[in-house]
Amino acid sequence: MADPKENVLMEKIVSLCKRRGFVFQSSEIYGGINGFWDYGPLGAELKRNVKELWWNTMTRMREDVAGLEATIIMSPKIWEASGHVATFSDPMIDCKTCKGRFRADQINDISCPQKPSKMVSECAGEKTAPRPFNLMLQTYVGPIQSEENIAYLRPETAQAIFAQFKNVLETSRQKVPFGIAQVGKAFRNEVTPRNFTFRSREFEQMELEFFIKPDEVVEAISGSVATPAAAGHPGEPQPNWGWQLWHQYWVEERVRFYEGIGLDRSTLGFHIQTPEELAHYARATTDILFKFPFSKVDEQGNVKGDELEGIAARSDFDLSQHERFSGKTMGIFDEELRTAWGKLPKEKQDDLWRRYYQARKNYLEKSGVKPEDAEKDATEDANGLAKGQYIPHVIEPSAGVDRLILALIANAFTEVTDTDDKGKSETRVVMKFHPRVAPVKAGVMPLLKNKPELVKKALAVRDLLRPWMNVYYDDAGSIGRRYARQDEAGTPYCVTVDFETLGEKPELLDTVTIRHRDDGKQERLAIGELRDWLLARGR
Amino acid sequence: MADPKENVLMEKIVSLCKRRGFVFQSSEIYGGINGFWDYGPLGAELKRNVKELWWNTMTRMREDVAGLEATIIMSPKIWEASGHVATFSDPMIDCKTCKGRFRADQINDISCPQKPSKMVSECAGEKTAPRPFNLMLQTYVGPIQSEENIAYLRPETAQAIFAQFKNVLETSRQKVPFGIAQVGKAFRNEVTPRNFTFRSREFEQMELEFFIKPDEVVEAISGSVATPAAAGHPGEPQPNWGWQLWHQYWVEERVRFYEGIGLDRSTLGFHIQTPEELAHYARATTDILFKFPFSKVDEQGNVKGDELEGIAARSDFDLSQHERFSGKTMGIFDEELRTAWGKLPKEKQDDLWRRYYQARKNYLEKSGVKPEDAEKDATEDANGLAKGQYIPHVIEPSAGVDRLILALIANAFTEVTDTDDKGKSETRVVMKFHPRVAPVKAGVMPLLKNKPELVKKALAVRDLLRPWMNVYYDDAGSIGRRYARQDEAGTPYCVTVDFETLGEKPELLDTVTIRHRDDGKQERLAIGELRDWLLARGR
Repeated sequence: MADPKENVLMEKIVSLCKRRGFVFQSSEIYGGINGFWDYGPLGAELKRNVKELWWNTMTRMREDVAGLEATIIMSPKIWEASGHVATFSDPMIDCKTCKGRFRADQINDISCPQKPSKMVSECAGEKTAPRPFNLMLQTYVGPIQSEENIAYLRPETAQAIFAQFKNVLETSRQKVPFGIAQVGKAFRNEVTPRNFTFRSREFEQMELEFFIKPDEVVEAISGSVATPAAAGHPGEPQPNWGWQLWHQYWVEERVRFYEGIGLDRSTLGFHIQTPEELAHYARATTDILFKFPFSKVDEQGNVKGDELEGIAARSDFDLSQHERFSGKTMGIFDEELRTAWGKLPKEKQDDLWRRYYQARKNYLEKSGVKPEDAEKDATEDANGLAKGQYIPHVIEPSAGVDRLILALIANAFTEVTDTDDKGKSETRVVMKFHPRVAPVKAGVMPLLKNKPELVKKALAVRDLLRPWMNVYYDDAGSIGRRYARQDEAGTPYCVTVDFETLGEKPELLDTVTIRHRDDGKQERLAIGELRDWLLARGR
Repeated sequence: MADPKENVLMEKIVSLCKRRGFVFQSSEIYGGINGFWDYGPLGAELKRNVKELWWNTMTRMREDVAGLEATIIMSPKIWEASGHVATFSDPMIDCKTCKGRFRADQINDISCPQKPSKMVSECAGEKTAPRPFNLMLQTYVGPIQSEENIAYLRPETAQAIFAQFKNVLETSRQKVPFGIAQVGKAFRNEVTPRNFTFRSREFEQMELEFFIKPDEVVEAISGSVATPAAAGHPGEPQPNWGWQLWHQYWVEERVRFYEGIGLDRSTLGFHIQTPEELAHYARATTDILFKFPFSKVDEQGNVKGDELEGIAARSDFDLSQHERFSGKTMGIFDEELRTAWGKLPKEKQDDLWRRYYQARKNYLEKSGVKPEDAEKDATEDANGLAKGQYIPHVIEPSAGVDRLILALIANAFTEVTDTDDKGKSETRVVMKFHPRVAPVKAGVMPLLKNKPELVKKALAVRDLLRPWMNVYYDDAGSIGRRYARQDEAGTPYCVTVDFETLGEKPELLDTVTIRHRDDGKQERLAIGELRDWLLARGR
């Protein structure tokens, strides 16, 4: 159960989000629509910064990742191949009396709409047996609403990456190991959207599919597969890494990303999926959690947290499924493997052949291929090794943008109490965003509004900075009020133009005051250094 | 009819887009899905740059625009208010014999599926009368597929801006005139998607709704409404601007934007909508066109072009509709108006009152309100003026991202023929993107791959630049081949590290060669100046 104190905190956060334009209820003037949220001016900037940082970290700063931007609606065959059409569902029960539909696992917790004193499981209404309710939103593309025109709104961005794997490989001059990154919207018809923006029906994902060599191929080329030596970041990628080290690497890279935008390791949690939780094709999945105000507290008072991102080692399941369903080969040719294979002793070849064959056969059988076909196909696949052919495996770090935004907001939310000269106290909110994600990087303000020379200079400072970062010019009200306004918006620095800027003290000509949000500290900086000073902190 | 030469050009463009990873067919391995296109690694960067430039130009660089990021699925009531549920449709005819569905205005142009020698209009099949086919994609949100759970994928991003107008106004410290900007996906179930990415079913828009005072309010405050003095940009906004000058201003601002990313005025066209084309509530709409390879050539050999963006003066229609449908007031209070009104002579008040009343009455009547109610409501609205109340009007510059990307690609596409020493010619493609939109800002390359000191230095240059821009490191093949590769990707500059960089000529130590894509010109630049030199050109 969540701590009631923390529910108060959630209420304060939701209220601040509306008041300052971080998050609004979608279609609010029409009573809203359950599970949909809009980002207001500050929220939109915060979200843009997060997506931009992820994209730059994942693609621009790396040689081994290419970007992709695919459509939300794709061929419905993609969702047959991925398994979503068959299995992406919750079991639901219909009540023939009240016509309500309820999640089968929640009938003991939900009140009967007609007799609220009873739970659905206890009421007299005649119920159907549980039936699967697919979570994909469905539409029709084309002029006729017929079976063949059914299409789905993607429930995840990942599948487009698999479907375009070959196109990207062929046009981007990449070689395995390499990744394909994508940011975009996805939709799930959640039965019970909840926890503000945490579980919504329309959301955004940042997904990387990082393609690696199967362990048997690594072993053929490098002689052996390196095994994790210790916990923590394993360092720069090496040719002898198998899936375990790549998985460890990406978990740690992603944690570094969160640390880099202000989520200390102490705010995070980890969940390593148990064998029972893992999908049959998955080798391992580590979830990175954040301790949200609504996260459950266990009996020892510990908070585990709720999921921000899952990093899954998905074997070659996805590419294999698309190969089977599309009839197009997803395998690649690797010259290095072909050369290395020819030089291996016969028993090594046999050993690798057998392990690869076994893995392929397991996949095929579990995917419903008839045993005799599975044996035949797996044999063919394993025979490919000698020709330098294999289907890459994949490590998938998959993050939810909206959850991360909510984590950043919850993490930044701080109440401070100021006491004035007369002993009067006032509590106000300071949003302690890391400068890299802060919606506004600097407030720019003339000390006084009614001094044209101060205003002119402050506008010049604004014009100097705004091609490089989002700044907010403010000349309304006392300087203290203006600082407080920026604190609430999460602006890390305020730049004030005062009489010293204009040369009242000659040695301070063309310097400004920088006021730090988190401790109120002030320092003096030359205008000429301002841009680089801010960029060094806020990019 | 399009020039057949230009169709050859379109084919070359489509082929380059696939070959270099600008654009792929969505779900290609499954045979594609008609009207949906994915952006590959280079296309995704190009699109990101365009959206980023639009956003920065529209929001960050201006004091008077706030951003928004709303959901794709909104309350269906929004689309009732906007008129999309009732009227956003094409008339369609069903054939009871072949079960085909055809656009009523195309039955003379489309062959009968069963008897292709005849047009649909001539074949024997029994046809229905034309019926409206709504272009909005429809889905169900929630567990039950019932009437009350119908929702639509937004056919435009604009309506979310109107629905959130009050929330943004209240949280962003803006005052009319001000705008709200949004970039995002929209969907239209086009019967015949065509011209590559120009008319697709899933597309992205960049829309600004810029809210202004009604002319009567401007006149009350400023004494008179300024009228356009001449064609061209009217300069900095003034308090006495009415809708005509604001409309002219935004048309010219948008043209400047296109010029700023490499689309010269000569590549653009304009279409001023005729009174017959205008919606009943619209005062004026100017479309900015681009001369695409598929654009029609008239009998005089002139190309008018196809639409990139429409700039519409939409009166107070949108906010008024949402006010009527939601029951929430969309009017604002303007202290300046209230004060000014009190000082106006009686006959001026009467004149302004009457004009505002008449405009409101026209709107109400044309929107289906009963005449007696329209009179009553218009009277109330006009009485609001004295209290400083009115509903803002809007100017809407609405641009299509995918069309712009296609225009930029078509505009950049250039074939050059190189002739080598032996007289052998080769034709290759140079994509002459403006540096601001180019997917890669600089290629970074060591002169030779097998000289570790060159490679080390080139990697250091790459590491210096890539936190600031997208660069591509390439050490494979001859330097000429590498330049050609970057030319085809549209990279404006290549930076080469050679022996002079390492100090072979001491005066050239730590300088690099910059090679210009468009003329092959080379110059020498100090590594220390490189970042700012590139940023000055490519941002």
